[in-house]
Amino acid sequence: MKLKPERAEELVGRLSFREGLVTAVVQEERTGEVLMVAHQDPEAVRKTLTTGLMHYWSRSKGRLWLKGESSGHVQHLRGVRVDCDGDALLYRVKQVGGACHEGYRSCFFRGLRGGKLVRMGRRIFDPEEIYGEGGSGGRR
Amino acid sequence: MKLKPERAEELVGRLSFREGLVTAVVQEERTGEVLMVAHQDPEAVRKTLTTGLMHYWSRSKGRLWLKGESSGHVQHLRGVRVDCDGDALLYRVKQVGGACHEGYRSCFFRGLRGGKLVRMGRRIFDPEEIYGEGGSGGRR
Repeated sequence: MKLKPERAEELVGRLSFREGLVTAVVQEERTGEVLMVAHQDPEAVRKTLTTGLMHYWSRSKGRLWLKGESSGHVQHLRGVRVDCDGDALLYRVKQVGGACHEGYRSCFFRGLRGGKLVRMGRRIFDPEEIYGEGGSGGRR
Repeated sequence: MKLKPERAEELVGRLSFREGLVTAVVQEERTGEVLMVAHQDPEAVRKTLTTGLMHYWSRSKGRLWLKGESSGHVQHLRGVRVDCDGDALLYRVKQVGGACHEGYRSCFFRGLRGGKLVRMGRRIFDPEEIYGEGGSGGRR
């Protein structure tokens, strides 16, 4: 889905940014699997809504970031929900490849089993192949 | 599920708290519906894991908060996942009543339809009845 700039602006105006950011939770549309959590400034929300591709604010790089800009693993926007406080957004997306720069479909590939933290997801791509030697180097 | 204190401490030691907090995404175990997003300090993670009931750090109240402490709408812990950066946790829970203090099952009860933000969820309880007159007054 894509919104016209004025509609996107309307939604941005309804949000409560905290230190300039809202929390974005990203869910795969078909399965409901939670893929990742990230942050967005007003411009990242605008870009996401008007281009139909997920954009975030990278707190580590201090800049706007198109998810998949180096990996090609973009996320096509399918739906948006807003929470009661207006400081968190829930996006439904169609994920190309994997959301996680470590090669997994979801960033939540580790979980508790028998009280211990273990890998639960299956690797679907090799980060070195996608991001080049040295891994993602912060590029995702 | 409940963990022994030493196992809970092991997990806490694997997390990366940012300004003392991690992000908690909470998903209903049966349906995969995302119910809410909140924050946790180390003590909230510990309490959650050792009691089997979701606890958060309230940024507005500046204190530990047992979800459901005034409403009775507690969340029984069923599973925990950790993201690649260790600064977000994905919890699967069994929600009693509704997660949202406005009377909805999920805090994400509004969403975009035809470019406009509209209510999508159905109210399942009356906040005044649960929290008393004047609404939640910050109590949830």
